[in-house]
Amino acid sequence: MARRIITLTTDFGARSPYVAAMKGVILSINPDAMLVDITHDVPAQDIRRGALVLEEVCALFPPEAIHVAVVDPGVGTKRALVYAEIAGRTYLAPDNGLLSRLALAARPSRILALTEPSFWREEVSATFHGRDILAPVAAHLSLGLPPERLGEPTERLVAIDWPECEVMPQKISGEVISVDSFGNLVTNITAEQLKSVPTGEELSVRCGEHETAGLFRTYGDQPEMTLIALVGSSGKLELAIVGDSAAAMLGEGVGSLVTLKW
Amino acid sequence: MARRIITLTTDFGARSPYVAAMKGVILSINPDAMLVDITHDVPAQDIRRGALVLEEVCALFPPEAIHVAVVDPGVGTKRALVYAEIAGRTYLAPDNGLLSRLALAARPSRILALTEPSFWREEVSATFHGRDILAPVAAHLSLGLPPERLGEPTERLVAIDWPECEVMPQKISGEVISVDSFGNLVTNITAEQLKSVPTGEELSVRCGEHETAGLFRTYGDQPEMTLIALVGSSGKLELAIVGDSAAAMLGEGVGSLVTLKW
Amino acid sequence: MARRIITLTTDFGARSPYVAAMKGVILSINPDAMLVDITHDVPAQDIRRGALVLEEVCALFPPEAIHVAVVDPGVGTKRALVYAEIAGRTYLAPDNGLLSRLALAARPSRILALTEPSFWREEVSATFHGRDILAPVAAHLSLGLPPERLGEPTERLVAIDWPECEVMPQKISGEVISVDSFGNLVTNITAEQLKSVPTGEELSVRCGEHETAGLFRTYGDQPEMTLIALVGSSGKLELAIVGDSAAAMLGEGVGSLVTLKW
Repeated sequence: MARRIITLTTDFGARSPYVAAMKGVILSINPDAMLVDITHDVPAQDIRRGALVLEEVCALFPPEAIHVAVVDPGVGTKRALVYAEIAGRTYLAPDNGLLSRLALAARPSRILALTEPSFWREEVSATFHGRDILAPVAAHLSLGLPPERLGEPTERLVAIDWPECEVMPQKISGEVISVDSFGNLVTNITAEQLKSVPTGEELSVRCGEHETAGLFRTYGDQPEMTLIALVGSSGKLELAIVGDSAAAMLGEGVGSLVTLKW
Repeated sequence: MARRIITLTTDFGARSPYVAAMKGVILSINPDAMLVDITHDVPAQDIRRGALVLEEVCALFPPEAIHVAVVDPGVGTKRALVYAEIAGRTYLAPDNGLLSRLALAARPSRILALTEPSFWREEVSATFHGRDILAPVAAHLSLGLPPERLGEPTERLVAIDWPECEVMPQKISGEVISVDSFGNLVTNITAEQLKSVPTGEELSVRCGEHETAGLFRTYGDQPEMTLIALVGSSGKLELAIVGDSAAAMLGEGVGSLVTLKW
Repeated sequence: MARRIITLTTDFGARSPYVAAMKGVILSINPDAMLVDITHDVPAQDIRRGALVLEEVCALFPPEAIHVAVVDPGVGTKRALVYAEIAGRTYLAPDNGLLSRLALAARPSRILALTEPSFWREEVSATFHGRDILAPVAAHLSLGLPPERLGEPTERLVAIDWPECEVMPQKISGEVISVDSFGNLVTNITAEQLKSVPTGEELSVRCGEHETAGLFRTYGDQPEMTLIALVGSSGKLELAIVGDSAAAMLGEGVGSLVTLKW
C-alpha cells in the first residue's frame, strides 16, 4: 500500500517550483509514495485541455493509482474540491469541470466533497489548494486512509459542455478538440463513429478550407507534406501533415470544424 | 536510509540531457535513491532565481532529503562547492550565493567545503561539476556516508545582496523579486510585514505606473482582467491580473518597485 | 530485479501526455519499475539528436537499466522495432538510426527484432508503438523476461551517416553536431583527437566567420562575452560565449564547419 502511485496533472508549467512544492508535501507524509508526472503544461487555466489529458492517460495506469489534477482558476472561492471514483479509478481535483470528460464516459460511483481539514496542511493558503489540500489528502489516501473520512458524499460533479459530433447517413460533422505536440489536429470523432464510413478515395475529409480524401493507417503511409486523416492513438480522428505540423501549416486549431462526406 | 530522497534544482533546461546525466551517476552509486526534480528551468546562470526557488520549496520536503542545486556560471574556477546544513535540511551546491536566501533566514549550522575527491567521479571535467562532484557526493550521502568525510569545515557561505523592503509608519516600499508561471508578480514584502496594514479601499498598492486598492484573499475574488494585490502561496505580497498574466499586461518584472500607502 | 530502472527518451515534448501514457502502461505491468526521464524534448522526428542524447547519457546509468527511446517518424510502417545490447547496456527503440551512434562506438553484441506480440498491448495502434509495444516490452523485461522470447535475432542495425572529422598534420576539420541548452556549440572533434594539438595562442579555432585562439579549461577562465573553445563535459570540443549563448550570438548551429589550425 505504501508504494502507491500518485500522478500529478497541472497547469503550473515546467518552469514552476509549484509542482515540487506539492511533491514535498506528499513525500513528507508518505516518503514511499511513487510520484508520476502526467503533464504540467496544460495551458494556464485551461480546464478543457486538462479534462482531455485526464481522459486520455489515467485509464492506462494501475487502478490503485491516485490521480491528482490541479487546473484551478477558482482557487479559494466557493468551488468545491472533490474525491471521485470513476470507472474504478481514483481522482482528486477541483470540481470545476476538470473531471467532466471522465464523468461523461462513466458515471462516478462515488463523489465526496473534501471538507474535513484534519487531512490538510495546518495552514491553508487561499491561493494554492493543490499544495495545501489536494497533496496532503492524496498522501493520506496512499497510506490507506478510508476515503469516507475526507468529507461528505455529493451527488454530482460540475459538468461543462463538450462539442458533440453530428452523425448523419453520409456525413459526420465534428471539431478539433486538441492539438498534440507534433501539431496533429485531434477531433472529437471517434473510431467507433467511423466504423461504417468508407476509408477509400470516396471519403472527403474537410477541415476549414483544407480537404483530403480517404483514411490512412499511419503517418508514414504517405509522402512528406501530405495532409492525411487517420485514427490516432487515442482512438479519435486526427488530421496530420506527414513530417510537419498540421496546426502550423493549415492555421487550424481547437474549435476548427471537421466534416466527413461520402 | 537507502531510499533517501535527492532533489535536483538546475538551470539546465528541460531540453537538456545534463539532468539525466546527474541521475545516471546518482543511480549508479545508489540505485534506490528517490530522485525528485524541483525545476530545471531556472533561467540560465540566474543564481538569484535559483536561490528563491530553493527557499520556497525545500522546506516542504522531509528533513532527511538531500537538496542538490546547480546554477554554476563559475564551474571549474576557484568558487567552492559546499555541503551545508541550514534549518535542519541538507544542501549541496556551488558556493556562489545559491544558498544565500536560505542562509539569510537561518544561520547554517554546518558548512563543509567539498575537497575530498574519493567521493567524486574518477575523472572530473572542468565544466560539469554537477555530474562529476555533486551527484556522486549526494549519492554517497544517501547511502549513509558521514558528511565530515566530504571535506573541511568552513565558516560562512558567499552572500549576495538582496533588495530590502523599507517599512515606514504609513508606507512600505519593496520590489518584485520573481514572476511565477502564471505571470503573477511576487514581491519581497512578506505577510508578516503586512500584519498592521489595512486591507480595505484605504490601502493603495502601486507597481510602476499601475495602481490598485486593498488586499484580496484570492484571485477569484474579483472579475477577470482586474489588477489585484494579495498574499500569495509563498507568504509574499503578489500583484496579479485575474485570469491573465500581470507581467505581460503591465510590462513589469523582477526589479519593478512596489509601494503601499495608507 | 523488480525495481529495475527504465529510462525514457522521446521527441514527444514536455507538453505531451504521451510520455505519461507510456509510464502508465509500464507501471500497470511492473508497478515497481523505476522510471527515469532522459529527455522528451528531442526536436520532433530528429533521429540524429536522439542518437546523440543516448550516446551522451545512457552509459552513465547502472548497466542493468533498460533504455527506451522513441523518435519514430516511420511508426506503423515497415521499420522494425528492436532490442539491442550494446557495450553491456540494453536498448529498445525503432531501428531507424536512433541507436546508430551507440553502434558506431561498439558493435552490438545482440540484436532482436520485436516480433512476438504476446508481450505487447492487446490492441496495437498504428501510430503509437512507444505505448503499445516498447513500453510493455520494457516492463516485461524489467520483471525478468528472457530477451530471446521477444523475437528473432538480426544481424545489424540501420546505420545513418555521421559527419566525420578530418585530422591532418596541422589542421583538424569537423562540424557542430549539437547545441546544448546554454547555446554552447558542441562539435564532433573529440578530446582524443586533440591530444597532440597545442592549447596556446598558436592554435586558431574557426567556426564560420568567427575565430578564437587557444583552448581553455572552463567557461569562467575568460571574461564575459568572450568566444572560447574548450573540451566540454561530453569529451568533445565546444565553442562557447562566456555568460551567453554562442548559438544566438554567432548565428551558428548544427552543421556549421569548425576548423583548427596550428
